[in-house]
Amino acid sequence: MTRLSDKERRDLLNRLARIEGQVRGIARMVEQDEYCNDILTQISAVTRALDRVALEVLDGHVHGCVREAMVAGGKEAEAKTNELLEAVERFARMR
Amino acid sequence: MTRLSDKERRDLLNRLARIEGQVRGIARMVEQDEYCNDILTQISAVTRALDRVALEVLDGHVHGCVREAMVAGGKEAEAKTNELLEAVERFARMR
Amino acid sequence: MTRLSDKERRDLLNRLARIEGQVRGIARMVEQDEYCNDILTQISAVTRALDRVALEVLDGHVHGCVREAMVAGGKEAEAKTNELLEAVERFARMR
Amino acid sequence: MTRLSDKERRDLLNRLARIEGQVRGIARMVEQDEYCNDILTQISAVTRALDRVALEVLDGHVHGCVREAMVAGGKEAEAKTNELLEAVERFARMR
Repeated sequence: MTRLSDKERRDLLNRLARIEGQVRGIARMVEQDEYCNDILTQISAVTRALDRVALEVLDGHVHGCVREAMVAGGKEAEAKTNELLEAVERFARMR
Repeated sequence: MTRLSDKERRDLLNRLARIEGQVRGIARMVEQDEYCNDILTQISAVTRALDRVALEVLDGHVHGCVREAMVAGGKEAEAKTNELLEAVERFARMR
Repeated sequence: MTRLSDKERRDLLNRLARIEGQVRGIARMVEQDEYCNDILTQISAVTRALDRVALEVLDGHVHGCVREAMVAGGKEAEAKTNELLEAVERFARMR
Repeated sequence: MTRLSDKERRDLLNRLARIEGQVRGIARMVEQDEYCNDILTQISAVTRALDRVALEVLDGHVHGCVREAMVAGGKEAEAKTNELLEAVERFARMR
């Protein structure tokens, strides 16, 4: 099963490390009693960064596992397709 | 290329007719100066109904066109995969 | 209680009439078996248009009812504030 | 200007510490080449946790700064109202 390439994995890990730092930064803003609206803006930036990471993971997944399962066909293809649609529901905040 | 079955098409058309009626209902609420929060609740119900219609369309699309393109492979598979990822971005309100 | 001005009401009704037409257009696309991805793009345009209408309604609501309730204070202020936060949850697809 | 109570601040900091740990957990999943769909589910859990933190911050903000500004009236009330509506747009991924 095709997984992430080394370059993609490193890129994702870099982004996640940055996001972790941003979350720590938000905690610091809360501790220092910074202005609520600035905290909200920062949380929204992190949420979007996470959405982009998720899209990146999905991209690799569709090009790899999902495509292979569809080419192979059968039950696995159906299972991967359903999983994919559930992932879309989560992206759309429908589940 | 596999498209919607007759049953799926009828089901989608029923939902869309209901949504059209709901939008008209919201207009009536605005005309009659109903309470803002009730209007907001109603708009949110329609937005979700539309998200469910979109998910239904995507479901048929992935089981049909996308799968066939992936099985066939080549440029068309790549094009359909990219389109799919753009659709996910729209579901996630990222584009 | 301050409600929508005539101009705002007319503007909202125009937008809702346009949205109703767009929903009818989507139904036509489904009937004519148009390409799924084009249907998805169109649904996404309508969802966003509805989000903008909702934001417009919320804007009037916050400048009107919510502000008045807050100035008056007491139970009504608390009730309006809670309603407002629930509306935000719906905007964020959290409820 | 009313800010967060001590209890609210501690609660937010606890949640943010948990979220930071979850982000680190996602990085570990990526490193260990875990199944993409499991990573996506985990990212989605963090996004929702962040949305709940944001809603909590907004709750304190509306009960505090926004209410006070509205009671005081004038330019500051208008500025806070506009900021609030922009925050809602971010919650709805409209900006």
